[in-house]
Amino acid sequence: MAGPSFRFGQHVLQSSCVFFKSRLSIGFVNRKPVVPGHVLVSPLRVVERFGELSSEEVADLFMATQTISGVVEKHFQSTSLTIAIQDGPEAGQTVKHVHVHILPRKSGDFPQNDEVYEALDKHDKEMGEDGKWRTEEEMAEEASVLARYFNCQVDSC
Amino acid sequence: MAGPSFRFGQHVLQSSCVFFKSRLSIGFVNRKPVVPGHVLVSPLRVVERFGELSSEEVADLFMATQTISGVVEKHFQSTSLTIAIQDGPEAGQTVKHVHVHILPRKSGDFPQNDEVYEALDKHDKEMGEDGKWRTEEEMAEEASVLARYFNCQVDSC
Repeated sequence: MAGPSFRFGQHVLQSSCVFFKSRLSIGFVNRKPVVPGHVLVSPLRVVERFGELSSEEVADLFMATQTISGVVEKHFQSTSLTIAIQDGPEAGQTVKHVHVHILPRKSGDFPQNDEVYEALDKHDKEMGEDGKWRTEEEMAEEASVLARYFNCQVDSC
Repeated sequence: MAGPSFRFGQHVLQSSCVFFKSRLSIGFVNRKPVVPGHVLVSPLRVVERFGELSSEEVADLFMATQTISGVVEKHFQSTSLTIAIQDGPEAGQTVKHVHVHILPRKSGDFPQNDEVYEALDKHDKEMGEDGKWRTEEEMAEEASVLARYFNCQVDSC
């Protein structure tokens, strides 16, 4: 999908990875999902900490998170969701741009339920440090499938 | 503090534990904080899953979360925050009422950063199963100190 790119902290996101756009937020797939359907939601404005968001951005970000959560839970046939923000470096944040992790959860997806968080922390720490990222094509394909649920193309919505 | 009690899933919260109240949400201390200042934010309405909240409740819940986050980060002199929802049993939810965990984080608060989540999961699982809960008095004292930041009494705000 051709179209604009988006900022995600120090990174540039191709629009092909973005499957949801509201007035103030975007939803996008990530290079190294901890579980199938692990996606991220961010404010469009590059803001490092949660406390810096305006009320309008907070409302928009979590309404986007709720909408996207419902879709990934359905699409990935999960039964629960882990929703988390690592807000600041001591909480494991590495990309300096507020982002909500949404992880569809299923019974037995980790040997112990809380291991999802260990995987989440490793995910962030290792971002860019190994060669196990998905290809742009894989990511674009997933984003394109998810985008259909929202009845919009990122370029136009 | 005398006053109304609040529902938290199957539990009844005494108003003495509630330090924040907005139109649709409450913030309250908990019996077994994983780190100092670990508090919870819930919609007033007893709703099990995040997806069942109205847009208005989502906006109110996360504006409350943002406001409370700023206060606990300041009061407990932390530098980061872990913000998480265990949405559904496969994500570790035990109390069937949407609640956002806010955990003030500091460098070195856990030997490994992600151990906070293991503690968080144990916290929920063990709720009510051991004798290590804080007393009502301890909880009321903390809630009373936090309530001052919001310039309101739960009974009247």
